[in-house]
Amino acid sequence: MDFVTVLGFAAALLTTFSFLPQMIKTWQSKSAKDVSFIMLIFFNTGIFLWLIYGIILQQLPVIFANATTLVFNMIILWLKIKYK
Amino acid sequence: MDFVTVLGFAAALLTTFSFLPQMIKTWQSKSAKDVSFIMLIFFNTGIFLWLIYGIILQQLPVIFANATTLVFNMIILWLKIKYK
Repeated sequence: MDFVTVLGFAAALLTTFSFLPQMIKTWQSKSAKDVSFIMLIFFNTGIFLWLIYGIILQQLPVIFANATTLVFNMIILWLKIKYK
Repeated sequence: MDFVTVLGFAAALLTTFSFLPQMIKTWQSKSAKDVSFIMLIFFNTGIFLWLIYGIILQQLPVIFANATTLVFNMIILWLKIKYK
């Protein structure tokens, strides 16, 4: 694996797992009233487009980061709708 | 500009501006106690690595998205330290 791919995976791990605390907090508190619905829709749409971008350019770190972040943020969106 | 670059810029706009409401909210409330300090450090470090990744691969959407997101989140981090 070349240097830039290792760098990409390090970046992916750091940014992806930054979303874990928010997901766990929302899960435990059963509340996401402080998290903007519009922001979540924008963010999930953007992450989905980044995923397509990564797939077209065949960049594994971009695919890995955005697939994982999309799952986390879809769960946060689902919890927000469920507990509204 | 080719299709994948346009796609990347659309993704960049959506994910970058998702952070604006958080920054404005923190600015106005003068409080970021619900935002994890560790999460901010991890996230800013990750975004910085994505910026280097984008610069090495010369991908304009990746550079634009991460430079802007880094500025927004450094401001959030600065506000958190300032108002703690």
